[in-house]
Parts: sequence; C-alpha cells; structure tokens
Amino acid sequence: MQLGFADRLVAAILAKRTPLVVGLDPRVVQLPEGLQPTDRSLQTQAAAVEVFCRGVIDVVAPLVPAVKPQVAFFELLGPAGMTALHNLIGHAREKGLLVIADGKRGDIGSTAEGYAEAWLGRGDQAAWGADALTVNPWLGRDALEPFVRCVELEQAGLFVLVRTSNPGSRDYQAPLADGLAMFERVARDVEALAERTTGACGYGSVGAVVGATWPQELSRLRELMPSTIFLVPGFGAQGGSAADVAQAFDSDGLGAIVNSSRGVIFGWEAAARRHLAGRDWQKAVELAAEDAIAQLRADTAAGKL
Amino acid sequence: MQLGFADRLVAAILAKRTPLVVGLDPRVVQLPEGLQPTDRSLQTQAAAVEVFCRGVIDVVAPLVPAVKPQVAFFELLGPAGMTALHNLIGHAREKGLLVIADGKRGDIGSTAEGYAEAWLGRGDQAAWGADALTVNPWLGRDALEPFVRCVELEQAGLFVLVRTSNPGSRDYQAPLADGLAMFERVARDVEALAERTTGACGYGSVGAVVGATWPQELSRLRELMPSTIFLVPGFGAQGGSAADVAQAFDSDGLGAIVNSSRGVIFGWEAAARRHLAGRDWQKAVELAAEDAIAQLRADTAAGKL
Repeated sequence: MQLGFADRLVAAILAKRTPLVVGLDPRVVQLPEGLQPTDRSLQTQAAAVEVFCRGVIDVVAPLVPAVKPQVAFFELLGPAGMTALHNLIGHAREKGLLVIADGKRGDIGSTAEGYAEAWLGRGDQAAWGADALTVNPWLGRDALEPFVRCVELEQAGLFVLVRTSNPGSRDYQAPLADGLAMFERVARDVEALAERTTGACGYGSVGAVVGATWPQELSRLRELMPSTIFLVPGFGAQGGSAADVAQAFDSDGLGAIVNSSRGVIFGWEAAARRHLAGRDWQKAVELAAEDAIAQLRADTAAGKL
Repeated sequence: MQLGFADRLVAAILAKRTPLVVGLDPRVVQLPEGLQPTDRSLQTQAAAVEVFCRGVIDVVAPLVPAVKPQVAFFELLGPAGMTALHNLIGHAREKGLLVIADGKRGDIGSTAEGYAEAWLGRGDQAAWGADALTVNPWLGRDALEPFVRCVELEQAGLFVLVRTSNPGSRDYQAPLADGLAMFERVARDVEALAERTTGACGYGSVGAVVGATWPQELSRLRELMPSTIFLVPGFGAQGGSAADVAQAFDSDGLGAIVNSSRGVIFGWEAAARRHLAGRDWQKAVELAAEDAIAQLRADTAAGKL
C-alpha cells in the first residue's frame, strides 16, 4: 500500500535534503531563444512549453522533492496546453518527483467531487494524476470535504489557500470576526483536517498555502497549525528571502516546502545576462536551483536536513 | 464594435423572454442509455459527453439566452474532456448562445492574467473563448483586477462568488467583521466593479453568484448591488423554487439569470420514469427547459419579459 502524501513528501524532502519545490510557470514569451515557438498557434506554443518543462524536470529531478505546475499557464494554451500538462505530470512522476497541481480549485457538492477525482484520482483512467492540489476555501468546510475524502482514499495531498502573498489578500483574508482574522479561522479548520490525515511523519496530508511576504505572521500560523505542512510561495522572484520563510519550518527543517518558480526556471535569463552560462539554459536552471537550495540551507532550519 | 457582456446578455434575455440558463454538468453515468460510452477510456467518455451536450445545446438554443458548462466535469475526463469542452463552447456560440464557463477560477498577479486571458480572450488563438467566467474572490480585489481588465478589453463578463448555496458557505462567507458579513463586503466590492463596467442596459458586466437557497438574503443583496447581474444557481435539482429566486429580479424581470443544470439536462430521466417522453431524451430536455421557463414566468417578474 502506498504511503500517504505527507509521508511521501517528507521522505522526498529528507532524500533530497531540501524543501525547495520548483514551480512550472511556463510563460511562452520567456522561453529560451532556441525553444521559441515558430508560429503563434496554440499547438506550436504548447509543444514548445512541453519541451521546455521536460528540460526543467530532467534537470531538477535529482535536486528537489517536487514540482508545482501552475495550471493557468497550460489552460492559456487551450486543449493542446492541457495535453502538455498531462504529459508533463506523467513525466515528472516517472522521474520520481511529486507533483503539486497549482489549480486553486474549489466548488460544492458533486462538482467538488469532480475536481477532486479529476486531479487526485488514481489508476489507468486518471484524468491528470497529480499527487496534490491547491484548493480555495471560500466556499466553506463542506466544499473542502470531497477533496479531503480523496486525500484519504487516494493517498493524495491538498494545500488550502490560508494566506496569500498579494497585497489584496487583506480584503477578505484579514478582517477580524469574533477576534479571529478570517485566515486564522481557515487555519484552525485546516489544522483539524491535517490532524485527521496525519501520517507517520507527524504531519497531515492536508496542508496550507501561506505567503512568504507576511513573515511576521508565519510564527503565529505555525503555532495555530502545528500538524500542517506549509506550502510557501513567493520565494525568489516574488520577493521573499530565505530568511523571510525561516519561521515556516520546525526545528528539524521539516513542516514546510518553499516554492520558487521564475527564479529557477527562468534563472537562465539572469545567468545569460551575467555571461555565466551562455546559451546553456538547462545548466543555468540547475545553477539557479542549487543556489535557491543553498540559500534555504544557509538561512533556515532546512540546513539540518 | 461588439457590445459589452451585460448588454449582450440583457438583449438575449429579452429576445428569448427568459432569464433561464442551462447548466451543462454532464455526469457520464447519467447519460441516456443510447449515449453511454462503450468502454471506460477517457476518450470514449469524452466523446459521449460531447455528443450529449451538443444534443442539449441544439435543443435549448432557441429557448434560452445562455449555457453554463461546469468545467469540473470536463476536467474529470482529462485532455479529451477539455477538447470536448472547447468544441462545445464553439458550438454553443455558433448557435447564438452566450457561454458562461463555470470554472470558479482565481489566482494572483500574472497567473490571474493567465486565467482571464485563457477563458475570456478573443481571436483565432483564444484558448476557450467563453463569454463569461465565474471567479472566486478569496484572494482579494487585486486578484480580481486582471479579470476585470479582461472584461473591459474583451467585452467579456464575470460572475464573482458572493454567496454560495451550500450549508458550509456560512463558514467563511457569513462571519461579521465590523458589522458587515464577509459576503456583504464582497458584494459591496462587486457592486463597485459592476458600476465600473455598466452598459447601456444599466447593469455591469461584472456580476455576482448568489445561491437561491438563501432567499431571505436576496433582497438585501439586491439592495447592496443595484447595478449587478445575479447568477442564481440552485434552481430545480438543487432545491430552490421559482418563488425562492423572485427577489433576485428587478421589477422588469431583469437583473438576474437563473441556472438549472440537472433539472433540465437530465430532465429526460424524470420524464422517462413518467412515460412522458419514452426514449426521446432530447424531447424531454426541451420539455424540462420549457417547464423551468414557465415556472419562472409564473412566480417571478420574469413573467414581464
């Protein structure tokens, strides 16, 4: 029997000795020169994105525990883009990576069941076959329940959007109701789901997305969610430093994964500007990933991994 | 130059003399016997779903202003399902229907731009080419902004999830902060966006999803959002009656659209059980749509259309 998601993720973090997750946000205009699509059809663009992301996956597979494809950039390329995403999820899993589909899905009742089964279902006829999915809590706890049931049945994982990294997250996540900020209310409910899905590693397979641009809140959220794995976006290009994310970890360097997307996959742009890697974009992606891993080891408890 | 979404929608409501929207939620197990897929591959299932939904679209195109495909049920069938969705959106638009993609999408920054362009973008290389999209407000106003810009640039429409119809919507939508329920706070912000996108019809192209299972709140929300078109789900199979949705309309029968999914597209099930339509499922879909239209005309201001 397969281990639960939290146990698989912690094992992968320990094996790779890093909590770094590489985000696959393939903007076509930013692809390396040699991979730019030769025409503007969605098919050609999707093919270019697939080649690029395969190249990124091949480079980072020995280095990190997981990749996080951003579904929006594949949806943007229509059916051909979704086919590319399907192929890339399969490729990443073959390479031993865990795959966190960043879809921020959410709906009610049987529609939520549909999304859960679509992204987290297993077997020959799995639609996408990811290991974990990001979900939006706005619709309420009963709307999360079909996803949690899928976590339990399919040994899958979930990351609930507790606190996002954008300035506007204050609008509906920060208001105080009965002395509790809305995101603290969600955090409390996510912790209950994490406790319900706790594996041998001590963490649950239901995790939380917590933006790194609110470092002063990370300790408070760590307190509120001791059993919950944090997915911290916003490291690197989005502005958070390794020191900013330090409070997300427990003293063993576990309990959190940190995502870098553009900083790694388009790291070759900066490298090329500095003439470090010339035209070898894959080498530059590797260097950028190693650099992010080193920063996390230097400035956080991830150094103990 | 194309009219804005709100003006196109109101024109279609007036032309068809009904605010009924037919939801395309094609659960494979519920397809009519003759359309059941012959094997369990996702390709075969997606083909069956496409044939069924084409049949529904052909029947309802003369009767209603819009269809609302539920993206989850297409995602559930993987890349083949997404190809079917793409084809069906094109088919519905060719038949003169407006298409509201029910994707409940939401993300921040350039990712939100990606979703907006994916669903609402126009032109040869449009990924999906819907007229409008449902979006989730949890991430805040700045996360809605890329969608609103797409509304303005592409004459598209948006429906923001203000108040959903499930019991758990009380968890994060109902708490009071500074005397205002969270959903009222979202409603106030949506009204501002509706005013910013108001067309000649007097309503904005940014609308609100408001569940019909909270009829006591509809009047309050109508007051808070006088320029906002309501998309009211939950009519029919989900439990709301025509009388329950009456408060969503203005005195001319405008200002709201009411969605029925299962009650119409699987109306042939009930009809077959009552031996009304025998095996002709398309005739039964037509009768179910006409029945829903008649109920709305009888019990709401839609009778004045």
